[in-house]
Amino acid sequence: MEELFSDEPDDTREAIMQATYHALCRHGYAGLTIQRIGDEFSKSKSLLYHHYDGKDELLLDFLAFMLSYYEETLPEQSYDDARDHLEAILDHALAPDRGAERDEYAAAIVELRAQAATDENYHEHFSRSDRFFRDRLADVVTTGIDQGVFRETDPDRTAAFLLTTMNGAMTRRATTDAAESLADVRRELQAYLETSLYAEVSE
Amino acid sequence: MEELFSDEPDDTREAIMQATYHALCRHGYAGLTIQRIGDEFSKSKSLLYHHYDGKDELLLDFLAFMLSYYEETLPEQSYDDARDHLEAILDHALAPDRGAERDEYAAAIVELRAQAATDENYHEHFSRSDRFFRDRLADVVTTGIDQGVFRETDPDRTAAFLLTTMNGAMTRRATTDAAESLADVRRELQAYLETSLYAEVSE
Repeated sequence: MEELFSDEPDDTREAIMQATYHALCRHGYAGLTIQRIGDEFSKSKSLLYHHYDGKDELLLDFLAFMLSYYEETLPEQSYDDARDHLEAILDHALAPDRGAERDEYAAAIVELRAQAATDENYHEHFSRSDRFFRDRLADVVTTGIDQGVFRETDPDRTAAFLLTTMNGAMTRRATTDAAESLADVRRELQAYLETSLYAEVSE
Repeated sequence: MEELFSDEPDDTREAIMQATYHALCRHGYAGLTIQRIGDEFSKSKSLLYHHYDGKDELLLDFLAFMLSYYEETLPEQSYDDARDHLEAILDHALAPDRGAERDEYAAAIVELRAQAATDENYHEHFSRSDRFFRDRLADVVTTGIDQGVFRETDPDRTAAFLLTTMNGAMTRRATTDAAESLADVRRELQAYLETSLYAEVSE
C-alpha cells in the first residue's frame, strides 16, 4: 500500500482514495469522518461531499478500488517455483514485525470487515474479496501441482485453509498483544506445508 | 451460551448480562444502545444507567463475565482421549451450520473484537482472552502428549496455530458468504492433525 499511495495521484478519484488511505491509517474506522479524510486531501473538501453521501459510501468505494488494484496486480507476480510464491505470501501475511503503517492499515481493515457482520454492502464486498483471494491462493496451489512440486491435493480446500489462517492472524495481530505468537503460526504452517502439500522429492 | 442464559438469572448482574446477550444477538454491536439492552431487561432500566456509564462500559463487563464463565467451566470438560477433546473443540468452532443464535452471537463478538483495533480497554480484554484460549488448547495438546496419543510437539506452537485458524473461521463466517468453505477448513485441519500431531500407532 505504501507503494500504491506514495506517488502523486493521477486524478480526483485517486486523490480521494489516497486521502482515505492515510486517514484510515491515522484514525482507524471508529475515529474516521469525512472531515478527517478532507484533512488528508489536497483539493477542495467540497469534492468529497459532492461525490459521496457519507463515510461508509466513501469507504465502500475505497474497498472496491483496493480490490481492483489487487485484481490487476496480483496475477502479474511471477515466481519460477510455486513453493517460493506460496512462502512469500505467507511470510508477508505472518511476519511478526511489519512496520507501523502496515499494521495501522491492517487494523483499519479488521474494523471495516467487522462492519460486514451487520451491513449488507460491506458483507457483499468482503464476500467478493474472500472469493478473490481464495481463488488466487488456489491458482498458486494448482501451479505447484502442475510443476510437480506439490502433491495432488484439492486446491480449493488448501486455499480455504490458508486464507482462514491468514485471516485469523490479521485479526489476532490487530486486536491482541499476541503478535509475537504469529512466528509460531508461521513455523507450524511451514510444518504443515512440508508434510501435507509439498511433494516428496526422490533424491 | 444458549444454556448459560436460558435459566432465570440469580441476581441483578446476571440479569443485566442476560439482557446484554440477547440484545447483542438481536442488534449486533453497531445497532446496540443501552436503551435496547433495557428492552431485554425484566427489571427497571434505571438500574442499567445506575451501574454503567455507557454501552462500552457495560459491554466490557459483559466480556469479562463471559471470560470468567469460560475460566470456570472449560477446565471441567473431561475427555478420556485428548484426540476426542481436540476434535470436539474444532467441530464446535468449524461446523458449517450452527444455528441462528450462535451465529448472531459470534457475529457480535467479531464486532466487539474489532473495537480492540483502536480501544485499549477492548484490546486488553481480547489479549487476555487470546492468552486464555491459547493456554487451554496447549493444555489439551500437553495431555495428548502425556497420553502418548500426540507426538512430542511444542504445545504453545500448535495451540497458536489452531487458535489462529479458529479465529479466522469465526471472522470469515460472520463477514462473508463463505460459511460452506469452513467444511473444507475442517477437513484440511483434520489432515494436518493426522500427519503432524497424532502419534503413529504401531499395529
